[in-house]
Amino acid sequence: MTMNRHLTLINRPEALPAHSDFALVERPLPSLAEGEFLIRNAYASMDPAMRGWMVDAPSYLPPLQLGAPVRASTVGEVVESRAAGFPIGSWVLGLNTLSLYSVGREGDGWSAPIDGAAPFPVTNYLSVFGTTGLTAYFGVRELVRPRAGETVLITGAAGAVGSVAGQIARFDGARVIGVAGGAEKVERLVAEYGFDAAIDYRGKSADALVEDIAEAAPDGVDAIFENVGGTILDAGLLALNRAGRVALCGMISEYNSPADPVGTRQLIQLVYKSARIEGFTFNNYIDRIPAAVQELAGWVSSGRLRFDEQIETGLENAVTTLLKLFSGDHKGKLILRIAA
Amino acid sequence: MTMNRHLTLINRPEALPAHSDFALVERPLPSLAEGEFLIRNAYASMDPAMRGWMVDAPSYLPPLQLGAPVRASTVGEVVESRAAGFPIGSWVLGLNTLSLYSVGREGDGWSAPIDGAAPFPVTNYLSVFGTTGLTAYFGVRELVRPRAGETVLITGAAGAVGSVAGQIARFDGARVIGVAGGAEKVERLVAEYGFDAAIDYRGKSADALVEDIAEAAPDGVDAIFENVGGTILDAGLLALNRAGRVALCGMISEYNSPADPVGTRQLIQLVYKSARIEGFTFNNYIDRIPAAVQELAGWVSSGRLRFDEQIETGLENAVTTLLKLFSGDHKGKLILRIAA
Repeated sequence: MTMNRHLTLINRPEALPAHSDFALVERPLPSLAEGEFLIRNAYASMDPAMRGWMVDAPSYLPPLQLGAPVRASTVGEVVESRAAGFPIGSWVLGLNTLSLYSVGREGDGWSAPIDGAAPFPVTNYLSVFGTTGLTAYFGVRELVRPRAGETVLITGAAGAVGSVAGQIARFDGARVIGVAGGAEKVERLVAEYGFDAAIDYRGKSADALVEDIAEAAPDGVDAIFENVGGTILDAGLLALNRAGRVALCGMISEYNSPADPVGTRQLIQLVYKSARIEGFTFNNYIDRIPAAVQELAGWVSSGRLRFDEQIETGLENAVTTLLKLFSGDHKGKLILRIAA
Repeated sequence: MTMNRHLTLINRPEALPAHSDFALVERPLPSLAEGEFLIRNAYASMDPAMRGWMVDAPSYLPPLQLGAPVRASTVGEVVESRAAGFPIGSWVLGLNTLSLYSVGREGDGWSAPIDGAAPFPVTNYLSVFGTTGLTAYFGVRELVRPRAGETVLITGAAGAVGSVAGQIARFDGARVIGVAGGAEKVERLVAEYGFDAAIDYRGKSADALVEDIAEAAPDGVDAIFENVGGTILDAGLLALNRAGRVALCGMISEYNSPADPVGTRQLIQLVYKSARIEGFTFNNYIDRIPAAVQELAGWVSSGRLRFDEQIETGLENAVTTLLKLFSGDHKGKLILRIAA
């Protein structure tokens, strides 16, 4: 009998997750029912949302149970199958877990075939063609809706989502300002991703951040793509113009203090400016994913859209990799290699 | 020379305004320029927004200057005129100040003629046909957009705006739940304004409030008309359903702590639920005000729409009256009678 190996959640973190909150366990592989298929996970996407799923409260997905494998998007190869649409040897992108193997079920809505022999590495389906790229794409196109000449602020701009969102907003004609943490990231925003301006929030007071945004956006900000929350969102709200739009993608500054979030103190700006904040996830637009991937693939093929992947290796390094999401100590999309 | 009398702001309050932040002053009346008219203010509207204008920060209107009369909407009679559209003896609704007399200017966009001999008392133009009623009307019709069978939560529900908003949402087919402070108000919401359910937030923990909303709205809340902010908005966000709408009208819980607002801690619910918060003011819909007033007047004439006015008397009682807005110690729309 082949054994499976999982990273499981054994304790709900109240702040930053610790190694002791997780355990690697081995469990026998189940046999497949009709319609199921066995995936050997090659790579897993490491996403800020994974932290949210560890909180025992409803979100757009049910919370993880203690003892259960940690949920993650993966790409992998089908190695056993009782599902006609997912034959052995085919590749699958799915919402699975940090495990050597996952069982998919045809028609569950969580698994999609991908072309393992495509011109793009399969890891791209976890980054630019996966949750990350699709979140950036739909957030910009559906909620930010940049018009030529507008100014768009991207927070968490050097992250996997933010860097792609900023580039798409520029393709659509906006002037794009990024906020990120650290001199190297700020430089990369302009030099690598082509942002028009970039601001380093590290070591800065809330007032200084407000001043920096005002300097970079003398005519104010027409829309925000928000990944951070807290004082950074507040600074953006103060800079927002009348009828401004905020696409709320995430609030990474809050994820490690679910019991005592910093909070948003400038929401009244929405009244002053007849502005709005709208939350979203990419799967609101599931019917349009193929068209979105096609447009993203065109930009990637032509070299116009730049993105980075940082690939770490091994389930035993999963927690260390997860923590890099919150320390900011990574470049681009964090991916964990599970099997060769 | 006739003297004017004003309530002026002489010190910016940092918390709840105090009597010492204001002074009554007499100043000579200016002579009118071409296009101007002199209004003898009969009544002034006492609004939570007046507190916001005292903060030295931009909002949808410039902040009050120290020494300037306190801004307020008034109704009054034209007693002198060099403006053809505003003849002597006609009545005017305008954004003026807490003063015996105000000078209006034709075409400034802030003054509108009203029918002083209409079947409705002129005070109604400061309540149900004024800022209050129009804010409720457009917030419900444009942002809450209730559909039959939906559940709508109104916070600050016993207030002048909230009580009208809740009734309009019911006319449009929603089940309406109000949140208010105190047993008498909660009883009035159901008995007088016809709300389907009402919740008293006074003396309740945040968790208890969340539980009460869940009990009153077992299928969740589809839209919120928000007047309060802080922990009350947070409780609403937790109860909000997928694709929920929040019409952000005001945040009265925050107005007296501009330097240290309580904040909103559950904004991440917008991501979980693909929901949105949108700020607004009634003057976004200025072209549609006549039609709105007509519909409101129909409901008032037929007795279907209930509203209350509490009229206090005299500029010397203006500050005491203003403070009642924040103590909740009033019933319906607070109006100050200035001249007979």
